[in-house]
Amino acid sequence: MTLMEKEINEQSHILDTVHEANTPTIQKLVAKMKEKKCRYAYFAARGTSDHASIYAQYLFGTYAGLPSGLACCSILTAYEGNLDLSDAVVFGVSQSGKAADALAVMEHAKKQGAVVVSVTNYADSPMAKVADFSLLCNAGEEKSVAATKTFTAQMYVMALVVAEYTQNSTLQNALQQVPEALGHWLPALNQSIDSFVSRYRYSNDGFSLGRGVNYPVALEAALKLQETNYVRMKGAAVSDFYHGPLAQVEPGTFVILFASHGPVYKDAVAMLSKLDELGAETLVVTDDKDLAASRQLSVRTPDVGTDAASVYFNAVFAQTFACKLTAVKGRNPDEPRNLKKVTITK
Amino acid sequence: MTLMEKEINEQSHILDTVHEANTPTIQKLVAKMKEKKCRYAYFAARGTSDHASIYAQYLFGTYAGLPSGLACCSILTAYEGNLDLSDAVVFGVSQSGKAADALAVMEHAKKQGAVVVSVTNYADSPMAKVADFSLLCNAGEEKSVAATKTFTAQMYVMALVVAEYTQNSTLQNALQQVPEALGHWLPALNQSIDSFVSRYRYSNDGFSLGRGVNYPVALEAALKLQETNYVRMKGAAVSDFYHGPLAQVEPGTFVILFASHGPVYKDAVAMLSKLDELGAETLVVTDDKDLAASRQLSVRTPDVGTDAASVYFNAVFAQTFACKLTAVKGRNPDEPRNLKKVTITK
Repeated sequence: MTLMEKEINEQSHILDTVHEANTPTIQKLVAKMKEKKCRYAYFAARGTSDHASIYAQYLFGTYAGLPSGLACCSILTAYEGNLDLSDAVVFGVSQSGKAADALAVMEHAKKQGAVVVSVTNYADSPMAKVADFSLLCNAGEEKSVAATKTFTAQMYVMALVVAEYTQNSTLQNALQQVPEALGHWLPALNQSIDSFVSRYRYSNDGFSLGRGVNYPVALEAALKLQETNYVRMKGAAVSDFYHGPLAQVEPGTFVILFASHGPVYKDAVAMLSKLDELGAETLVVTDDKDLAASRQLSVRTPDVGTDAASVYFNAVFAQTFACKLTAVKGRNPDEPRNLKKVTITK
Repeated sequence: MTLMEKEINEQSHILDTVHEANTPTIQKLVAKMKEKKCRYAYFAARGTSDHASIYAQYLFGTYAGLPSGLACCSILTAYEGNLDLSDAVVFGVSQSGKAADALAVMEHAKKQGAVVVSVTNYADSPMAKVADFSLLCNAGEEKSVAATKTFTAQMYVMALVVAEYTQNSTLQNALQQVPEALGHWLPALNQSIDSFVSRYRYSNDGFSLGRGVNYPVALEAALKLQETNYVRMKGAAVSDFYHGPLAQVEPGTFVILFASHGPVYKDAVAMLSKLDELGAETLVVTDDKDLAASRQLSVRTPDVGTDAASVYFNAVFAQTFACKLTAVKGRNPDEPRNLKKVTITK
């Protein structure tokens, strides 16, 4: 078994432990955010951690009404801009907790009196030490170069912050169901992907599309396929895809489309019609029974009541698909060329 | 002459008119932003307009210390999140001024008392009518499906806002020099691209990389090649490229690298070394005379004193390269498949 496969399969258990491991910290963090009246959230991250942060942006905006931004790190690390972050809550997100650029943003924010939070896998990491509040992925060492379990754990712990901040019971209940539902679903997912993955032996490019909370999952799905299979996948929001990139679609173009029940489901279905019209070959990942049954290529995911929780199943699909494809393509997912596990950019 | 080529060549003249056309509005807008003590900037845009907004984010952060975020439009248009934008300055950016999603963000922001600004090509567009302050691209009708002149004009008018807000003389002087320098440089640019563009007749994919202010130009360069040549280009920040996507580079991989003098120049040069090591075929777009002379494939751009102004030359390079490549590939840049000029997504 590859490290990547092993770590993908640990996720149900890890998510089950994230809540308890972080509850006291989350409660204190939320109290502080309210006491300080934080006006917006600001996220410093790279790569997979960036995608987890985009998910958190949707949740903060939707449930808490809190606007947010992704740090343009070089404003601080290269251009020496004196960003005023005094009324922000600033999240530094990094598996290793060593990301120099995120650390620089956190240090700057701290000097200015922002509420500073780390989301890492190590309580003794440089980022965790700088933070006022250290949230933990609780994922154990991640040996696979391609991040898997830390991605879902990063999303989960930030979603728990939003759930605590808003006391939204729909979100709380859905998040609570995820670990067990994920564990039950994994055998079906594996069987499903095994039945069609060989189809993509010679696939070299394509698109991965989602919207809203599943936009970052589309980005992450593309990244997993890029880094482990060297497939030129591009992830995009369904809405942005109409603005130019759609020109690249021709008959046979490979597209992964995430279509989960919720406010943007209809947009995904509209894109599917467009893709069908253009002759694209679309693999639909959906929690809609009828949609899944009506397609030649589909994966059906669990539905635990809100698309805010669909991302965990969709992300695990993307990881598993990328991992199984490496076997078909004769790659080793644990030794992607040109990459190392910890990447530190300033 | 194609519409795209014609409109690319209009840019020196258009930028020359943007300042005068917008000065009174910009002065009033800046006074209002200071009076209202706006805490952060928020940008609602799609596609090319999104890239112009990212450029504005870097300038606001670097020169004015103002943090910013890109709107996740579906938070408002689909998820019905009640974003609190009361102390933001909100920019809606769209060539047509008809973008439904940006309009929704602007309307929501206006209700909450935010300072609301439109950046469009039409003073009577829906977005201009909703805005408290309507900034104009002053570009005349843009007939080419691929946006060119409105992209540089959007960036330019937002840069003028930052220059007025900060009274930064380096930025002011550099921006002032751009129109004339661009006009003088265009013949050399055309000649340079003509000398090597046929090399890319069978190129079907690649990467476009920049950092800081040139990160959005890298995104826009990729988009131009995608929409007019259907080439699978991916734009990325140099810093993010290390986090996974680098695995896709192999000997011969086509990369466009923007390397302009300034705080992130050394990062671009470090990436170039890495790409050389991996055997990538890199086309370097740079204002460094020695770097340009040392490469097999390079385009030399003017240097007007700060990389905040390098983007205009780099963007025009990208547009011209994409346009000339359509001739080599036998495409019509004015009729890209699957696209129409005005795309309205909610």
